[in-house]
Amino acid sequence: MENKIKITYPSSEKIYMKGEIHPELRVGMRKINLTPTVMKVNGERKERANAPIMVYDTSGAYSDPTIDIDLRKGLPKLRNSWIAKRKGTQMYYAKLGVITEEMEYVAIRENMNCRELGVESRITPEFVREEVAAGRAVIPANIKHPESEPMIIGTNFLVKINTNIGNSHNNSGIEEEVEKAVWSCKWGGDTLMDLSTGENIHETREWILRNCPVPVGTVPMYQAFEKVNGKVEDLNWEVFRDTLVEQCEQGVDYFTIHCGIRLKNICLADGRLTGIVSRGGSIISKWCKIHQRENFLYSHFDEICDICAQYDAALSLGDGLRPGSTHDANDAAQFAELDTMGELVERAWKKNVQAFIEGPGHVPMNKIRENMERQVEKCHGAPFYTLGPIVTDIAPAYDHITSAIGAAMIGWYGTAMLCYVTPKEHLALPNKEDVREGVIAYKIAAHAADLAKGHPGARIRDNALSKARYEFRWKDQFNLSLDPEKALAYWKSSNKVGGKYCTMCGPNFCAMKISRELDECND
Amino acid sequence: MENKIKITYPSSEKIYMKGEIHPELRVGMRKINLTPTVMKVNGERKERANAPIMVYDTSGAYSDPTIDIDLRKGLPKLRNSWIAKRKGTQMYYAKLGVITEEMEYVAIRENMNCRELGVESRITPEFVREEVAAGRAVIPANIKHPESEPMIIGTNFLVKINTNIGNSHNNSGIEEEVEKAVWSCKWGGDTLMDLSTGENIHETREWILRNCPVPVGTVPMYQAFEKVNGKVEDLNWEVFRDTLVEQCEQGVDYFTIHCGIRLKNICLADGRLTGIVSRGGSIISKWCKIHQRENFLYSHFDEICDICAQYDAALSLGDGLRPGSTHDANDAAQFAELDTMGELVERAWKKNVQAFIEGPGHVPMNKIRENMERQVEKCHGAPFYTLGPIVTDIAPAYDHITSAIGAAMIGWYGTAMLCYVTPKEHLALPNKEDVREGVIAYKIAAHAADLAKGHPGARIRDNALSKARYEFRWKDQFNLSLDPEKALAYWKSSNKVGGKYCTMCGPNFCAMKISRELDECND
Repeated sequence: MENKIKITYPSSEKIYMKGEIHPELRVGMRKINLTPTVMKVNGERKERANAPIMVYDTSGAYSDPTIDIDLRKGLPKLRNSWIAKRKGTQMYYAKLGVITEEMEYVAIRENMNCRELGVESRITPEFVREEVAAGRAVIPANIKHPESEPMIIGTNFLVKINTNIGNSHNNSGIEEEVEKAVWSCKWGGDTLMDLSTGENIHETREWILRNCPVPVGTVPMYQAFEKVNGKVEDLNWEVFRDTLVEQCEQGVDYFTIHCGIRLKNICLADGRLTGIVSRGGSIISKWCKIHQRENFLYSHFDEICDICAQYDAALSLGDGLRPGSTHDANDAAQFAELDTMGELVERAWKKNVQAFIEGPGHVPMNKIRENMERQVEKCHGAPFYTLGPIVTDIAPAYDHITSAIGAAMIGWYGTAMLCYVTPKEHLALPNKEDVREGVIAYKIAAHAADLAKGHPGARIRDNALSKARYEFRWKDQFNLSLDPEKALAYWKSSNKVGGKYCTMCGPNFCAMKISRELDECND
Repeated sequence: MENKIKITYPSSEKIYMKGEIHPELRVGMRKINLTPTVMKVNGERKERANAPIMVYDTSGAYSDPTIDIDLRKGLPKLRNSWIAKRKGTQMYYAKLGVITEEMEYVAIRENMNCRELGVESRITPEFVREEVAAGRAVIPANIKHPESEPMIIGTNFLVKINTNIGNSHNNSGIEEEVEKAVWSCKWGGDTLMDLSTGENIHETREWILRNCPVPVGTVPMYQAFEKVNGKVEDLNWEVFRDTLVEQCEQGVDYFTIHCGIRLKNICLADGRLTGIVSRGGSIISKWCKIHQRENFLYSHFDEICDICAQYDAALSLGDGLRPGSTHDANDAAQFAELDTMGELVERAWKKNVQAFIEGPGHVPMNKIRENMERQVEKCHGAPFYTLGPIVTDIAPAYDHITSAIGAAMIGWYGTAMLCYVTPKEHLALPNKEDVREGVIAYKIAAHAADLAKGHPGARIRDNALSKARYEFRWKDQFNLSLDPEKALAYWKSSNKVGGKYCTMCGPNFCAMKISRELDECND
């Protein structure tokens, strides 16, 4: 394995902002430096500086040139000293009125440019505490994963994206998965789910956790299923519980658990076009039907919470009955599970376990809003975490796009985190390029939602990029973009570059050039 | 130039449906043949046939193996005999109560599977006539472009997509442009705008028109601008008028004309972040300011209509003041122009000229609906034709995605046609692969809108593909998709293929496999 992985971004610096309540905090951000605007005033060349732009940075120590990273040793253990004195979860402290280091950290992180530009933000450390106390936001931060930089998932914060990686029986190895994890963080993945199902599940996860600067989630059922050699009937609570403890000990920050499936509700999926398409959901449904017994994830839910509370692992209540086709969207099976999740999330909160709710799936545009509204109503404001949704079924190989449409919309409506989809969805496991495509498509959806919701500071980056575009500061435009490397490469692919016109239009036809000449007439 | 271009789709046949009012009509469609569903009933293998699915087909004669196409001779002149007896535009006949061949053609075309599946459709030839008479729909069909297959643009019909091609001073040649035109039709482009600005404009357009089975649009100002050697101040009505007549004679089906810009309104764009970003709009604005005169496209609008009426060329009232950044969305300049377009569209209708209205551009999600609602109100129900909109500015190289999000939404809200955006938007001219990416992204947006609007028959394809997916009929799944070639290639890229499980999950973890086992328990 490569000994040193570095992440770099053009014209960017890693900077750190300090805390006030906790002065020892150093919150990493990426500062993009810009070139000046060049003007002619009375025939004389003048320059006007453009302020640097701060952007939210998920790349952790990998983009800090002063830190040497040895993958065998893992990342610096940022949160160790904070964790040492802990006696409960973030929710426990929030309810007590205590602002933890993590809470102040995320407040600073969410506000990026606000402090420097004097933009008033409602996101204060106290606001973060209130949201966590009310269950409206989650800071996934297992005390055994001190390498993770705190981040927050909630409707009143920046919309986050999750990326999935993980080998299966058919595919990739450990090194490749760690490389993909860092790669996902480079492009902006906020959390990472390790969905490995093959051999070496434990070891793969260990490598990922020790080297991952963002929270890591899993579906513990996958490993439990491996432990019973893929025989659904042999699954039981004890195997699952032991797996959960094993993964908590490793530092997994959140668990998808399909506890919302009830024996009595499985039949509601009978008339579906595409049955049950969640892996965990189909396994536990089959178990319930074989044994004609209640889902043990439901009946042992309080014990699951007790385990999670010890580690401050968060629960992602999995939507095992999500629709697998737009035809099945918003049906009785899906909504019955949502009702159960609403019941369970309150039980989690009573034990101070942070929790969020998973959502679909495949949903046509006209049925998306109902998902969000029902989730808020039934689940008492717990954060919603959706997979897409995909808005039409007819575009395999382009499902990063079909789903980015639904993701942007549901993000705008209030979903807190969007689980990415790559172009290979439904077809094959994603390679590195697919991960990049999927992450960028979802950064677009999330940022479009932030803009539409009016998140403080979200507009700053769009405005800076648009200004650079209008002033033909090409490099600034690219450096401010989500994928500077690709934008630059496309631009260079045309024959002539660097001029005061857009290569799409040619020198005589550039609207921006003509429009700027118009401006000069005004001066 | 290659002598014979053919378009093929896997497991597909070209079929023709006949007219009833006009029995000589032969409306081309693509029929996708499916394999049977294989089941085990009492341990015995049984097959159940799956009905073929009809899909809307924009590929014209290129996908008919019985027709030899010689690019030097052009496509068969499908509409010649219909046109021979004409005395007015489609709107003229619609108002008289006459159902033209084009009207019945599009009614059959829009309904695809409805007739065979017994789905009741509101889209009858009489309904088409009513919509055209009311100005709510446009059939762009210049009498000098008999090669074009009739199609309809209106909010009560399938959402259409336009693709732009065209060389500039910097780039491609004629052959490449014709190849791109056919390529665009292959993937599903409903209309095609030739935005060439370089040399050989006339000749390029001639080749494209004679070989294009879909309506062709242009921005005649580009050629007029070439005629005055790129000197804005030398532009005048006469040069423009002659260019318009020249292009009408060639058979251009619709013209984007920036007649909505008024001298008094140009100053409204002064405070913008990104000025005027429409090429035609910036040229005419500069002309107005230099001469301090009213826009001649506005003052000569009735004469423009008289010319268009002679050829049944449609007008696309260009949004010269569309926003070029999300910052500038929905501003006074944009809406002042929309008001003017509302005035002009009624003047066009008085002369029986079909017309639609162009829209933005760059608009954050929360401001999209206002665009649609104002357009309907101010423009009296004339079809809306939007460019995207792009919902965030920060993703150059991915603007097919940023804009597909806005396009899907505004399509759902009622926009009749979506102008595609390729990954190279803002950066360079698109190559063939970019055209494909752009077209597919927009077919996704348009189809997602059709689904959300409940267009009769739109759901049939999604359901058939989802059923194939659930039954592991991989090839059927791909053949029903928007890009069978890419889906198949991605699927093959994984190590193991063809099994009764999805390559993402591996054999033990496939949810659909487990879910189907569950179904079998039920049987």
